[in-house]
Amino acid sequence: MDLKPTKPLSGFIELLPAQQRCFDYCANKMQSVLRIAGFSLLDLPAIERAEVLSDKDNWEEIETQMYLFQKGDTKMGLRYDGTVGLSRYVAGHLNDLVFPFRASQFSKRYRGERAQKGRYREFYQMDLDIMGINSLSMNYDAEIISVIGAALDSVSEFIGPNIVHVGSRPFWDALFDYLKLDEKQKKEIFVLIDKKDKMGDEDFAEGLKDALGDADKENMIKSVFTDGYEQFVNKSENLDSAIAELTDFMKILGDMGVKNATIDLSIARGLAYYTGLVFEFKLPNHPELGTAAGGGRYADLVGKFSKTKIIGVGAAIGFSRIFASMLENNQIDLTRFSNPIDVAVLVMGDKNLAYAMQVLNAFRKANIPAVPYLDTDKKFKNQIEYADKIGARFAAIIGDDEVAKSIVALKDMQSGNQESLSLADAIKKIKVK
Amino acid sequence: MDLKPTKPLSGFIELLPAQQRCFDYCANKMQSVLRIAGFSLLDLPAIERAEVLSDKDNWEEIETQMYLFQKGDTKMGLRYDGTVGLSRYVAGHLNDLVFPFRASQFSKRYRGERAQKGRYREFYQMDLDIMGINSLSMNYDAEIISVIGAALDSVSEFIGPNIVHVGSRPFWDALFDYLKLDEKQKKEIFVLIDKKDKMGDEDFAEGLKDALGDADKENMIKSVFTDGYEQFVNKSENLDSAIAELTDFMKILGDMGVKNATIDLSIARGLAYYTGLVFEFKLPNHPELGTAAGGGRYADLVGKFSKTKIIGVGAAIGFSRIFASMLENNQIDLTRFSNPIDVAVLVMGDKNLAYAMQVLNAFRKANIPAVPYLDTDKKFKNQIEYADKIGARFAAIIGDDEVAKSIVALKDMQSGNQESLSLADAIKKIKVK
Repeated sequence: MDLKPTKPLSGFIELLPAQQRCFDYCANKMQSVLRIAGFSLLDLPAIERAEVLSDKDNWEEIETQMYLFQKGDTKMGLRYDGTVGLSRYVAGHLNDLVFPFRASQFSKRYRGERAQKGRYREFYQMDLDIMGINSLSMNYDAEIISVIGAALDSVSEFIGPNIVHVGSRPFWDALFDYLKLDEKQKKEIFVLIDKKDKMGDEDFAEGLKDALGDADKENMIKSVFTDGYEQFVNKSENLDSAIAELTDFMKILGDMGVKNATIDLSIARGLAYYTGLVFEFKLPNHPELGTAAGGGRYADLVGKFSKTKIIGVGAAIGFSRIFASMLENNQIDLTRFSNPIDVAVLVMGDKNLAYAMQVLNAFRKANIPAVPYLDTDKKFKNQIEYADKIGARFAAIIGDDEVAKSIVALKDMQSGNQESLSLADAIKKIKVK
Repeated sequence: MDLKPTKPLSGFIELLPAQQRCFDYCANKMQSVLRIAGFSLLDLPAIERAEVLSDKDNWEEIETQMYLFQKGDTKMGLRYDGTVGLSRYVAGHLNDLVFPFRASQFSKRYRGERAQKGRYREFYQMDLDIMGINSLSMNYDAEIISVIGAALDSVSEFIGPNIVHVGSRPFWDALFDYLKLDEKQKKEIFVLIDKKDKMGDEDFAEGLKDALGDADKENMIKSVFTDGYEQFVNKSENLDSAIAELTDFMKILGDMGVKNATIDLSIARGLAYYTGLVFEFKLPNHPELGTAAGGGRYADLVGKFSKTKIIGVGAAIGFSRIFASMLENNQIDLTRFSNPIDVAVLVMGDKNLAYAMQVLNAFRKANIPAVPYLDTDKKFKNQIEYADKIGARFAAIIGDDEVAKSIVALKDMQSGNQESLSLADAIKKIKVK
C-alpha cells in the first residue's frame, strides 16, 4: 500500500510543540490586553451562508478566493474574515448586547487563493471591534488603535516596536469630487492607490494616465504622496472637513497616549467596506510583513442584517503572519518554550505501579507538571533517557526500595545528584525553581 | 433591500458573551489538567486532503457526512475528528517528537450530517492521545482514562460526577471466532452491538436472528449483556486472553486511583479504528448526553502514513455537547460570568479626554479591566446608565473639576457612594474586591 502524504496542504501551517507553546504564549499575552480593555471574546462559526459571506456585487470576485460548498439546497462557505460574521451576530442580538459593544475574536480564517510566501490559506487573525447604535465617536477609533498598540507592545520582546499609519477615505472622496472625476474614474484611481506600494511609481503614473488622461489631475493625485494634504486646505468644503477630521484625530491619538502615529494617505485598505478613517500598523523590525494589523471605520456593514443603524470601528491583527515572520527570522529562542515538564516518574516494574501512581497523582495535585514512563518493563537506562529527552527537570525513580520505604528517589537531571526523599519533601524540592 | 438572515446555520453554535466566558472558563480548567499531565497542545489544520480524511473502503459512507471541496486538482475537506490529522502529523515528525508522544488538541470539528438535538455540524472536542513506537504498555490506556476523569472532575461543579465504562474489542473478536461466525456475520453483529442502546432489545434480537439464524449463537451473544463475560472463561485461548486483559486492566485503573470504573462489553465505539480496549465516560447527572467522552487503543492508524509502527491510545471529550447540555439544563448561574469590568471611565466632554485617557491607561496598566465611554457629548445620565448596563463595579467620572484637581470621582455602582480620590487611591480602592 502506498503511504499517504504527511505534509499538510500547501498554505496551511502546523507547528511543533515548542513552537506551538510560543504561539499560545504570544496569543495569551495579546488576548489579556484585550480582556483588560473590556473586549468580550467571541467564538463564531467558521462556516456561514454564502449570502452572508458575499453580496451579488462582488460575488464573482471572491468566489475564486473562498472555500464554498453546498449541503442540500444551502450554499455555504468558510469565513475569510471576522467582520462579516460579527455583523450578523450583532444584528441578531441587538437586545442581548450593551452598546457600544466591544467584541474581540481570535479565530481561523480561510482564503482559497494560491498560497505564497506570507499568504496562508488558513490563518489566525485577532480582531477587535466596537459597534455603536446610530452614532459612535471618533474617540473609539483612537481607542482601537491604542489597544492594538498595547497588544503588539505586549509581545515586543519578539517583534520589536510598532508604528501606525493613518489614512482617510473621506479625504480621497473629497479630492475625487474636487477633481470632478466620474464614478468609473473614482473606482479605478482608488484601485491604483490601494496597489501603489506593490506596483511602483512608473506603473502608478501609467495607470493614472490611462484612467484620467489629464496631466493636471494626474499631478494633483501624485502630489498627495509627495507633498501631503496641506496643499488641499481651502479648496473645497469636503476637503477641509476631511483634513480637519484627520488632524483632529491625530490630536486624540496623542491624548490616548499613542506614540509613533503618522498621517499616511496612501493607506487605502483595499476596496472593502471602510467609510471613514483607516489605519495600518507596521513593525519596523519586520519590513517583510508589510502590514501587521489594519482596520478602520465602517458605517454600512450591519445594514445588510438589520434596519437598526450600527456604526463600527474595527481592526484585525494578522497573528499567523506575524508569528511566521518571527519564526522565520529565528528571533525566538525556542528553548524557552521547550517542554515544561518538572518531573518524569519512572516505574521499575509493574509491581511498583500502584505506589508510583500515588506519587504521580500527588505531583499533579500539587500543580507540578508530571509525566510517567509506563512501559515498566523497560530498563532503567531507557527510562532515564526518556526523562532526559522530554527535558524533565527531575526524575522520580520508583523501584522496590522506594515502595518498601514509601519514599521517592529524586534525581536532578541537570546535576545528576540523586536523593531519597519523602513524597512531601520531593514535592517541596521540585517546587523550588 | 431584503435583510440577510442573522441566525447561524442550523447545527452551528454561537454563544452570548457571558456564555462564552463560561465556555472558556471550563475549557481552561480542563486544559490545565492536560497541561499538568504533560500533554503538548497542538493546533492542526482544519482542512485535510480527502485522501487523508478517508480510505477508499469507507469513502462513500463518509462523503455524505463531510464537508468536501476542490481547489485546482486537489480534493480536500474539513476534519471530522482529531485523530486522522494527528496520525499524519506524528508520521511526518517522527524525528522531531519524543515517544511515547503525548498530544492534546482542543479544536473545532465538522460533520455534514443533518443537524439534530445534541448533534452539531461544528463542534469542539478535546482530544488526548499517547503514541508509542513499536509498543505501548496498557498502563497508558489507564493513564488516559485517569486524566480524562481528572479533566471532567475539574468542572464537576457544573456537570457533577463522572463514571467510566470499559469494553474490549478483542473480547468480541474472540467470541465471534469461538462462535465460528463468518466475516460478514462478524461485521453485521458488531454493527448491531454498536447500535444496541438506540435500537432496543426487540430490534436487537431481530437483528441477531437475521444475521445468524442460529438460536444458540443468538442467545450466547445476548447473554453477554445479561450475564457478563465470566461464562466465557475457559472456552478458548483468545477469550481467556481477552478476559484476562480486561480484568488486569481494571486492576491497573484501581492503581491509578480511578474510581467508578466498570466493565461494560456493550461499549463498542462504532466501526472506527479501535483495536484493543475501548471506554466511554458517562455523566450520571446528564443521562441525555449518552457519552461525554470516549476512546480506546488503535494499532493501525499511523500505518497509512509511515512504515514505522506506531501504537496509540486516545480519546475525545465531547466538549461542545457537554457544554450545550449544561446550558440547556440551566445548571449554570451565568451571573458569575457576567462582564468582568471593574471600572467604566466616563468622560464629561471632549476637553477632558486627555486626562480621562491617562486615568484609563493607568487602570489598565494596573491590570484593572476598564472600559471608557467615549461619546463624550452624551449626558451624565446616559453615561452612568452605560456603566450600570455593562456591570462595572465602579464608575470613574472625569469632569472639569477632576481635571483641574487631578483627581478621580469614583462611584461605587452597587452602593451609589461617590468619593473624590487621587488616581493612586482610586486604583487601590478598585483592587480591593
